[in-house]
Amino acid sequence: MNIPRTSYPRVVIIGGGFAGIALAKKLSKQEVQVVLLDKNNYHTFQPLLYQVSTGGLEPDSIAYPIRKVLKDFPNFYFRLANVEAIDSEKNKVKTNIGNLKFDYLVIASGSVTNYFGNTDIEKHSMAMKTIPQSLNLRSLILENFEDALLTSDLNERNALMNFVIVGGGPTGVELAGALAEIKKGILPKDYPDLDTRLAQIHVVQSGDCILKGMSAKASQKAEDFLEKLGVNIWKNVRVTNYDGKTVTTDTDLTFETATLIWAAGVKGATIKGLDSRDFITKGHRIIVNAFSQVKGFNHIFAIGDVACMITKNFPDGLPMMAQPAIQQGEQLGGNLLSIIEKKPLKPFTYKDKGAMATIGRNKAVVDLKKWKFQGVFAWYVWMFVHLFFLIGFRNRMVVFVNWVYNYVRFDREARLIIRPFKKRNP
Amino acid sequence: MNIPRTSYPRVVIIGGGFAGIALAKKLSKQEVQVVLLDKNNYHTFQPLLYQVSTGGLEPDSIAYPIRKVLKDFPNFYFRLANVEAIDSEKNKVKTNIGNLKFDYLVIASGSVTNYFGNTDIEKHSMAMKTIPQSLNLRSLILENFEDALLTSDLNERNALMNFVIVGGGPTGVELAGALAEIKKGILPKDYPDLDTRLAQIHVVQSGDCILKGMSAKASQKAEDFLEKLGVNIWKNVRVTNYDGKTVTTDTDLTFETATLIWAAGVKGATIKGLDSRDFITKGHRIIVNAFSQVKGFNHIFAIGDVACMITKNFPDGLPMMAQPAIQQGEQLGGNLLSIIEKKPLKPFTYKDKGAMATIGRNKAVVDLKKWKFQGVFAWYVWMFVHLFFLIGFRNRMVVFVNWVYNYVRFDREARLIIRPFKKRNP
Repeated sequence: MNIPRTSYPRVVIIGGGFAGIALAKKLSKQEVQVVLLDKNNYHTFQPLLYQVSTGGLEPDSIAYPIRKVLKDFPNFYFRLANVEAIDSEKNKVKTNIGNLKFDYLVIASGSVTNYFGNTDIEKHSMAMKTIPQSLNLRSLILENFEDALLTSDLNERNALMNFVIVGGGPTGVELAGALAEIKKGILPKDYPDLDTRLAQIHVVQSGDCILKGMSAKASQKAEDFLEKLGVNIWKNVRVTNYDGKTVTTDTDLTFETATLIWAAGVKGATIKGLDSRDFITKGHRIIVNAFSQVKGFNHIFAIGDVACMITKNFPDGLPMMAQPAIQQGEQLGGNLLSIIEKKPLKPFTYKDKGAMATIGRNKAVVDLKKWKFQGVFAWYVWMFVHLFFLIGFRNRMVVFVNWVYNYVRFDREARLIIRPFKKRNP
Repeated sequence: MNIPRTSYPRVVIIGGGFAGIALAKKLSKQEVQVVLLDKNNYHTFQPLLYQVSTGGLEPDSIAYPIRKVLKDFPNFYFRLANVEAIDSEKNKVKTNIGNLKFDYLVIASGSVTNYFGNTDIEKHSMAMKTIPQSLNLRSLILENFEDALLTSDLNERNALMNFVIVGGGPTGVELAGALAEIKKGILPKDYPDLDTRLAQIHVVQSGDCILKGMSAKASQKAEDFLEKLGVNIWKNVRVTNYDGKTVTTDTDLTFETATLIWAAGVKGATIKGLDSRDFITKGHRIIVNAFSQVKGFNHIFAIGDVACMITKNFPDGLPMMAQPAIQQGEQLGGNLLSIIEKKPLKPFTYKDKGAMATIGRNKAVVDLKKWKFQGVFAWYVWMFVHLFFLIGFRNRMVVFVNWVYNYVRFDREARLIIRPFKKRNP
């Protein structure tokens, strides 16, 4: 990779997610050369992917060009690259566009869907971790309803109109709520010649509650909200397989569906060279100390979803969410400069800002440290926080316009099959 | 196709473009059953496709769900279908989802890119007639600059940064202007490690002027605007081939480029069964009379780009633009009802509302019947008219927000490679 060597130490950041971008911003005007590598030329605002899948938002308004984030920073380089391996002995990363030496390496590669080794589910189910995946799901949902019109086989029609979401975390809950609102508000008008009341939305949760990471109150209220919207919640049921038609579980329960959405887990997006057992713990995450350093290295770090930092309150590692990622990125920015200037490092302390999830129109749950609330006000807080954390003024404006429009009109106009998924070109 | 027969006569419309939608709206509350067929579930606002290709607008804001247009109309059916053939003897259309009988058939299938038989150009060039094509071009432009960073071969780098647009019609002119603005305003900031001054934009025009259909004044002014923006215009030059690397012409001129955009012509999207010489004229258009009737039929019609309606002022047929399409759709709506009610038909008269094209920021040309003007005011008129003709309040709002943002910030934030084109998955 033809990036000039300067007298500044070179920091290579793998990944332009919340963690990588927060770190880059912190290093923006310092005496370091920063090379940011990402396989996309944009940052994805993952918390709103489910709204892309359900036609509520355009994909472009939750994506932001990484080059634009970096454009005013001197000594910054971006390369569109897939990182294939890390050579920690020679201080080198191998990518599809060549090798790159580093003085400091920060792995901020995020997480990928975890199928727990089930290849059938991986093959037949839909995931929602990236913008293309979310657009594929959007297309599939709409194609299913178009196809439902064409069949006279009642079982097939029902399977096309049934949606099984595996996983009752924020992604599953938010998606289920959005689908329920589409069923109620849009399908009857869009498909007058189809009995869309028969459409079913199922959430299958292996544990005994949804939104496990949140308070009992939030979990219960989210369940109430979903049930009010007509979503079927199946607790203590574990999905065991899916062949593209039938979902089997560890109980007698089965589902016939053309659409299984797998939101049951993620794992760290580890990279060859640092993925041996020495470094990796539960959930394929890289064990790091309080300075985000990978075991055995002073100059290799991991932050965000891919890093497993254990604290007193989080013995399994900090949650794989935006907040820890952003805070770790910012903290590491300061520490990297301290290392270079040979000053003492500051250990990371997590400021738990709470958690929130939206279920639908006027329905959200918010857990703050000292205050837990649900309903309309929570929904406004949820929207405000998400607008605030979106990168870019234009994105905020466009998302805001869409939300106001969708709210006032009970509508979601991005119900477009731009690139068909089922009938995609081979 | 399982569409119930009622006592109302059935009108089948092929295509949900400007013509088809205008007709559908006209028939909305009449005693006819309408079946609209389209291969997409959305209407495309084609005049703004070039802004999608150049990152100025999101694709979703120039697309509109067809089902939403029809949702309040009783007796309306939409089917997502590719029409494969027309059987004019049995009054039947054949589609990929089954056959459909009609009482009245309206062909509003629009136009497709015309490569004039050159398969090399068809294979290697980019077109911009659909949203997926426009997104492909957006990806390719951005991928080219990412790749330009990686090569040390100066010729290759230049080829990656050169853009050759064939055709000096509105599409070619508007795209060239937008690319020139990107070169000036965005590339230097996004690619500080690349000498983007070397990027070249060429417009190759076989005739002796650009914007041929417009006034001499508009044509000259558009040329001045483009030259001011640094676009190279080559007149009286005909592109003869492109092998993916080198563009050859009928002169000594050749271009080395990784991107050839073919905006040199369109042809009617005719359909098997009505595509024999009896019906078709220059540009693969279906000859129709002043009632939009196809020769030899009282109940089969063609409107919009695919129809060739000859008038006194337009001996080669009305131009393939939105205005004739919309007016023909509306007119045919009235005439169809007259036919059913056995009333006399009204011949179509074209209300020429003029033409316009935008070249860039504050630079547009407008030809009205009695007034031709260019520059800043023309640019405002252009924007106003395009906002007005966009379908949907949300789309208008989002486009408006984007335009204001882009204007104030000299920016285009949708420079996102959501689906790579060069490195697309096989």
